[in-house]
Amino acid sequence: MAERGGDEIATPGFTQEFRQDFETLLKWRRDVRRFKTEPLPAGMLERLLGLADLAPSVGNSQPWRIVIVDGPEKRARVISSFEAENEAAAQRYDDDKAAHYRQLKLAGLKEAPVHLAVFSDDDPVQGHGLGRTTMPETLAYSTVSMIHTFWLAARVEGIGVGWVSILDPEAVARILQVDADWRLVAYLCVGFPEEEHIDPELERVRWQARSPLETRLFRR
Amino acid sequence: MAERGGDEIATPGFTQEFRQDFETLLKWRRDVRRFKTEPLPAGMLERLLGLADLAPSVGNSQPWRIVIVDGPEKRARVISSFEAENEAAAQRYDDDKAAHYRQLKLAGLKEAPVHLAVFSDDDPVQGHGLGRTTMPETLAYSTVSMIHTFWLAARVEGIGVGWVSILDPEAVARILQVDADWRLVAYLCVGFPEEEHIDPELERVRWQARSPLETRLFRR
Repeated sequence: MAERGGDEIATPGFTQEFRQDFETLLKWRRDVRRFKTEPLPAGMLERLLGLADLAPSVGNSQPWRIVIVDGPEKRARVISSFEAENEAAAQRYDDDKAAHYRQLKLAGLKEAPVHLAVFSDDDPVQGHGLGRTTMPETLAYSTVSMIHTFWLAARVEGIGVGWVSILDPEAVARILQVDADWRLVAYLCVGFPEEEHIDPELERVRWQARSPLETRLFRR
Repeated sequence: MAERGGDEIATPGFTQEFRQDFETLLKWRRDVRRFKTEPLPAGMLERLLGLADLAPSVGNSQPWRIVIVDGPEKRARVISSFEAENEAAAQRYDDDKAAHYRQLKLAGLKEAPVHLAVFSDDDPVQGHGLGRTTMPETLAYSTVSMIHTFWLAARVEGIGVGWVSILDPEAVARILQVDADWRLVAYLCVGFPEEEHIDPELERVRWQARSPLETRLFRR
């Protein structure tokens, strides 16, 4: 990395090579649903969580609460919740779309060596409430920034992350017996991917292609 | 970047130097409230938005709707909303804390050359509803991942981002005359920072320090 001098202190600059590799990282970060059962190297989860903890948060509140789910009985109950909600979701589609939906692999809960249930504290003391009076949802948004940081940091190490949202959030909170003020934001599967792709699986199996950025950009 | 051969296709690996620089990026990514008025280089905003658009989204729905706010009258009305909500927030604190709060600089709306209002479409056609039946908030969470990607990509280029949440989201939607299904997720100030820091401003001015990760980690 090139260091460039600032007026007060030396601040980091980033090389052209870093720029290119950062773009590669964003392009190859994928939602992974096909995991090897191989465990993560010793210390890796702690390292990734340490990087994720650098994420921004409203009022510096750091509202994320991360539950490492190791208990086999608890994992089995989460998997049951997924299976029930996934079947309920399938039944909401018409026949052809439902058949297509049922062919999708939407979670790697049975294979992934690491399960993380990520909650957001809706009433943290830390931060003294700053920045969240009119938009209290910025607490959960801060937690999403942490999750996204974790996702990118994992991919740098060749580790895949799958975000499972086909769950009853209140059922997961009950299974894991967490504080009443905690809101489930994501249930993450983490492990080495069985296969790697630069295109999203939902695009590859023709469920949903990406569309041009121009359709999402407006001027006022 | 080192390329390592996969079974099917070559997938990217990342060097030790990239790992270190990526950690530096996370450490130096800050919420910026002190901007130079200098405009961004030509094409830069489009490049950053293109990278941000690589972010993950539930069901590949890409629900983010990005409004570039250039109109001076519209900017002035957003600034008025911020000032009113910021004063209302100050009044919620006791005397000493209120005095401290009023000393904080919480937005760079007047100086930042670029204003982005980022909305999330609560009912996008794209994605066919996949993954968001039980947790519809994953649409807004997808939009947060886009914002966070933008933030990191900007910092790589030495450009600062400040997330303003002290706003009435419905007032901003009215000012910008957007679709009724769009929810304001963030109002971003973007520009070159006047000063750069590795520590959060709220920590530096002793409003709120960070706390150890261990207090946010649990096992079940």
